[in-house]
Amino acid sequence: MVEVRLPDGNVVEHPDGVTAREVIEAIGPGLARKATNAVCNGTLVDLAVPLEGQVEFKAVLPGDEVGLEVLRHSCAHVMAEAICDLWPETKLVYGPPVENGFYYDIDLDRPLTPDDFKAIEDRMKAIIKEDRPFTRYEMPRDEGLAKLAAEGNEYKVDNAERAEGEVLSFYVTGAAGSGCFEDLCRGPHVPSTGRIGAFKVMQVAGAYHHGDASKKMLQRVYGTAFPDKKELRVYLAQVEEARKRDHRKIGQELGLFTLDPLVGTGLILWKPRGAVLRHNLESFMREQLLARGYQPVYTPHIGRLDLYRTSGHFPYYKDDQFPAMFESERARQLNALWEIAQAAGSETATPAERELYQQLAGEYEDLKDPPYPFDAPLDERLKRVRTWLNVEDGYLLKPMNCPHHVRVYASDRRSYRELPIRLAEFGTVYRHEKSGQVHGMTRVRGFTQDDAHLFCRPEQLQAELADCIELTQYVLKTLNLTDFRVRIGLRDDDDKYVGSRENWAIAEQAIRDAVTAADLDCVEERGEAAFYGPKIDFVVKDCIGRNWQLGTVQVDYNLPQRFGLTYIGEDNSEHVPVMIHRAPFGSLERFCGILIEHFAGAFPLWLAPVQAIVCTVSEKSDSYGREVFDACMKAGLRIEYDQTSERIGAKIRAASMMKIPYVLVIGEQEVDSQTVNVRTRDGKQLGSCTLPEFLAACAKEIVERSA
Amino acid sequence: MVEVRLPDGNVVEHPDGVTAREVIEAIGPGLARKATNAVCNGTLVDLAVPLEGQVEFKAVLPGDEVGLEVLRHSCAHVMAEAICDLWPETKLVYGPPVENGFYYDIDLDRPLTPDDFKAIEDRMKAIIKEDRPFTRYEMPRDEGLAKLAAEGNEYKVDNAERAEGEVLSFYVTGAAGSGCFEDLCRGPHVPSTGRIGAFKVMQVAGAYHHGDASKKMLQRVYGTAFPDKKELRVYLAQVEEARKRDHRKIGQELGLFTLDPLVGTGLILWKPRGAVLRHNLESFMREQLLARGYQPVYTPHIGRLDLYRTSGHFPYYKDDQFPAMFESERARQLNALWEIAQAAGSETATPAERELYQQLAGEYEDLKDPPYPFDAPLDERLKRVRTWLNVEDGYLLKPMNCPHHVRVYASDRRSYRELPIRLAEFGTVYRHEKSGQVHGMTRVRGFTQDDAHLFCRPEQLQAELADCIELTQYVLKTLNLTDFRVRIGLRDDDDKYVGSRENWAIAEQAIRDAVTAADLDCVEERGEAAFYGPKIDFVVKDCIGRNWQLGTVQVDYNLPQRFGLTYIGEDNSEHVPVMIHRAPFGSLERFCGILIEHFAGAFPLWLAPVQAIVCTVSEKSDSYGREVFDACMKAGLRIEYDQTSERIGAKIRAASMMKIPYVLVIGEQEVDSQTVNVRTRDGKQLGSCTLPEFLAACAKEIVERSA
Repeated sequence: MVEVRLPDGNVVEHPDGVTAREVIEAIGPGLARKATNAVCNGTLVDLAVPLEGQVEFKAVLPGDEVGLEVLRHSCAHVMAEAICDLWPETKLVYGPPVENGFYYDIDLDRPLTPDDFKAIEDRMKAIIKEDRPFTRYEMPRDEGLAKLAAEGNEYKVDNAERAEGEVLSFYVTGAAGSGCFEDLCRGPHVPSTGRIGAFKVMQVAGAYHHGDASKKMLQRVYGTAFPDKKELRVYLAQVEEARKRDHRKIGQELGLFTLDPLVGTGLILWKPRGAVLRHNLESFMREQLLARGYQPVYTPHIGRLDLYRTSGHFPYYKDDQFPAMFESERARQLNALWEIAQAAGSETATPAERELYQQLAGEYEDLKDPPYPFDAPLDERLKRVRTWLNVEDGYLLKPMNCPHHVRVYASDRRSYRELPIRLAEFGTVYRHEKSGQVHGMTRVRGFTQDDAHLFCRPEQLQAELADCIELTQYVLKTLNLTDFRVRIGLRDDDDKYVGSRENWAIAEQAIRDAVTAADLDCVEERGEAAFYGPKIDFVVKDCIGRNWQLGTVQVDYNLPQRFGLTYIGEDNSEHVPVMIHRAPFGSLERFCGILIEHFAGAFPLWLAPVQAIVCTVSEKSDSYGREVFDACMKAGLRIEYDQTSERIGAKIRAASMMKIPYVLVIGEQEVDSQTVNVRTRDGKQLGSCTLPEFLAACAKEIVERSA
Repeated sequence: MVEVRLPDGNVVEHPDGVTAREVIEAIGPGLARKATNAVCNGTLVDLAVPLEGQVEFKAVLPGDEVGLEVLRHSCAHVMAEAICDLWPETKLVYGPPVENGFYYDIDLDRPLTPDDFKAIEDRMKAIIKEDRPFTRYEMPRDEGLAKLAAEGNEYKVDNAERAEGEVLSFYVTGAAGSGCFEDLCRGPHVPSTGRIGAFKVMQVAGAYHHGDASKKMLQRVYGTAFPDKKELRVYLAQVEEARKRDHRKIGQELGLFTLDPLVGTGLILWKPRGAVLRHNLESFMREQLLARGYQPVYTPHIGRLDLYRTSGHFPYYKDDQFPAMFESERARQLNALWEIAQAAGSETATPAERELYQQLAGEYEDLKDPPYPFDAPLDERLKRVRTWLNVEDGYLLKPMNCPHHVRVYASDRRSYRELPIRLAEFGTVYRHEKSGQVHGMTRVRGFTQDDAHLFCRPEQLQAELADCIELTQYVLKTLNLTDFRVRIGLRDDDDKYVGSRENWAIAEQAIRDAVTAADLDCVEERGEAAFYGPKIDFVVKDCIGRNWQLGTVQVDYNLPQRFGLTYIGEDNSEHVPVMIHRAPFGSLERFCGILIEHFAGAFPLWLAPVQAIVCTVSEKSDSYGREVFDACMKAGLRIEYDQTSERIGAKIRAASMMKIPYVLVIGEQEVDSQTVNVRTRDGKQLGSCTLPEFLAACAKEIVERSA
């Protein structure tokens, strides 16, 4: 007997071996028509799976988040079959669902182009029309590996070797033993190909196997799929809109930034107009910070490795960082000794540690006295190496600003009276993202955080969190990003978390209360906290419906402890402050990239790199045009003067292409009446007004930061 | 017969073998009493030197720049003798004159302390009183080396080995053969010890032999000497004043910045008050730049090695840079191949090049096809390696901003109409100064330049130079650094200079004209140009008379050429722009360090990190005090509120110590009359006024940037 507990709490009984499909059919034919899979005791399964014992049961619909993933993954199988039908020499690699669709990596010498997509889609349509079932079968691991090896596809053999478990599973797109297309796959899948409502092959790009650039370049074919045609249409329209708004395209057209292979992958060169945009954002933020009692600091872009050994950022995040700069070969080798000891973590020195030390002591006399304490505990050995490294060490391009700010805090003895101390910096940090993952301004290797670190007494935590949330809300709303929600990352029962349970409970409650007080749409995610404290992420929906994770607020119990931070309390004894990391923009590069797309380059007046342009109808109005230009300049408006000899229509069009908010058209009539004729970048004619009127209107719009 | 031409143009004849002393005596007894040396045909010599042939002759007085150096170097010999008399086991190393004095490095196990200075000075006084002559004698090199080896001082042997020429010279402090103290020395010296007017032993510090930290630490004993006691007194007073104004001391006291061994040597952490000071300077400069048509950019703090291979900054300045970060071991080795080929500069591949390539090709398949062209010209070989390095390369922490700005210029096709283009950035750069040379904020490893690069047409050069000079003058004067002069660095006939003779002539004339038009005190220095163009350096005298080299303006014909920069001229064909590098502050770190000393921490109101502080007499005036504080805050004044429970006198003293320009004392009387009682940081009582009056006065002082 199987006890099936449904989401509404009802428990229904079924005979042993009942399938998920039968359970759903028993609930009702409407659900049965739609459901593609089920979640049983937390595991996503095919409908054909037989159930046993007590089961928490939930049907999965294609519109659900997981349902959509299964649908898309099934569609990836259909696309793979279509490609293999068309080019039988194709070797399939892997084909997972991704955000907004799926891809399949293939090894095929013939380069696919968008011209091939029609043929692929036609073949896919036929497969979907046949409404073949997806049928799972399993094989013992060895047998499965032998089968794959015999088929001669080394990629699938590699996938199988990486798969966990005693058996390998395969999915036939058709009945078992039908000889239809099949693929090594964990599953699950939709019941049959006919369930794939609407799909499209989107693009093809190069990709390395497991991202390894030393291997052969594969082809990655992207597609997408939706439960129905309407959803696909909406999505494709959004993609088209996103393409038009692509910040890389607009950034180039408006002269905002450039990327340069000679400078380096993922490193933004902010051109003058982009630099003005960024400076406006920085000034806005600085004004907010000063009003809220933040204090500015400036810190260097590098730090000694020992700073990051202390913070714990090295070597744990080594792979995401630019390589260290060692002051000498000696420092490089001593660091290697430290890393070896650290990684092994063994109670006494390992043979590798001993050997490296012996070699070093042979070269550097001063390492012999006192010698490396082979039998001392790890901490003592690590400390010894760090003492040696005090003479010469390595430097890291800073991957974050916190250790530097922590050291500013630590540079003075602090009293409870001074707290909270809020240290803010537009701090540029560097992370060595894989070159394939770098994208325009939104995924880069160097970025400037509107960073701050707050050091407070535990009882101040809630008020500080509330302030951080208020600031982030204010900033996002001012930038017309009004549709956002927050994700609260809480701890689970894992033992990886540092800090006392009691402090965690206080911090989690403080975050919840602050979010509730701010009346924010939020979700709580257990197990999504950082290991050092709970956090809030702001997820913003832009004007074409895409979600972006932006600002973050994180509580940290770890760094104050690692760096031994203290303050003298009212009781005259030492206490450890709590630390908050927060960045409302997150990264200025990423934020600007998103803003470019959100506004499609048509920034609000206060942000616009160029706020107005003077376009004269003919040379006759040049002298008055210059007067207008000079007066605007003097009033602090960022104004340009079209010096070309184009006709007025062409000048207005050019200004509109550059998304300049106001075009001041000046002809003989304006000269006579001492007025300006104002047009907006989107072609509205606002009519004539005097220059003081125009400047006053601009000043108001700028002060109010109207969007 | 010797023909001696004197500075006044007169030629006097003397018999062969006449000494410099005799020539001077013939000029007159007054000069003979004072002169310590002579310059003969450009060479500084002892007075005892016999002359021959035709001689351009000039007597050297102890007050001359070179005379002072000779005097001090002679005093170093006297100090060395005194130390050896007191501690005969002393081994002397070397003792050169330096700015403001001299030092002598000694190897002596007993650590000297300031308590020993009296004994040393007493012994020196005795030697000077004896008025012994400095007597030169020479020995063939081998013989001299043998003599020194026999004496058992390995440092002197080392000095002798490094000395050039066939003979070694020694100076006896006494008559030849008298057995008095003697020292290996190039000379020259003053005629006798009695010529040393006034001296003082200043301090003792540790120093490594030739700066090599792996060797034994020596003791460096510093002293100074002057032609007379009065000059020494003036100097010592200046030293004392400088000690009081030491920016390291004041920076600590006022909480402006801190240095942290864990972050790294020579890396400034700007604390909140220092960060406000710096931000004020940046805002001031930004305002000036925008008004003068500069455009802001932001560029990353790193660049690919290939950027610096192109600019030529790598590997030539490698030793002054932080080590490169290589993306992979492959990149490190390929760069090594490039460096080896580059350094050898040989027409076909050297054996070392061949060997390294073979090794690399064994490891990386893709380097075999096409292979390294052993017999191709150097340029082609270097190009091949750079092609390979295109996949993975190294990065350099940027040592200057120019290559990045050049690439911003190069990111668009430029027309003559757009020029001049003036790209400005507060760009932080990093240079790996030797740890012994790092000093507070004035000699650091990371610093932010108020940098800009101007790209202009040749005919625009003079106007642009004039603007740069005007800006620098304006900036220095605003900061109350009113005593400055300029040094113009011009080319000589060396063939190291790039760019045509014609362009150089234009640029040098343009600089001269601009300096003349600005009516600046200037010196021209032949051979002091950069290899890429002539330059102007601003040398500023601070309020205690010390000279600082600050802003610089440099013409550059080299980088535009190396990067192939162009613009389309009126003739519709391509031309190469001229580039100007300029930075009025130079480095913000150094400039702030100097400003701290110049103002002794008492910054003008517009710069002051905290502009005013509210000090209440008792709790009774707290409520009104808060009102005053809030109103000042709202008016944009950087104001603090003394929250301590100290008495009013202590509060005023504390504010004065922190150099806060205005102290607003608020007692019951002020509450009653709704006024504030204003005191300055230097104790002046300005009396009572209403808050609006105070704020208006401050606003005026700030807008005017009164110093």
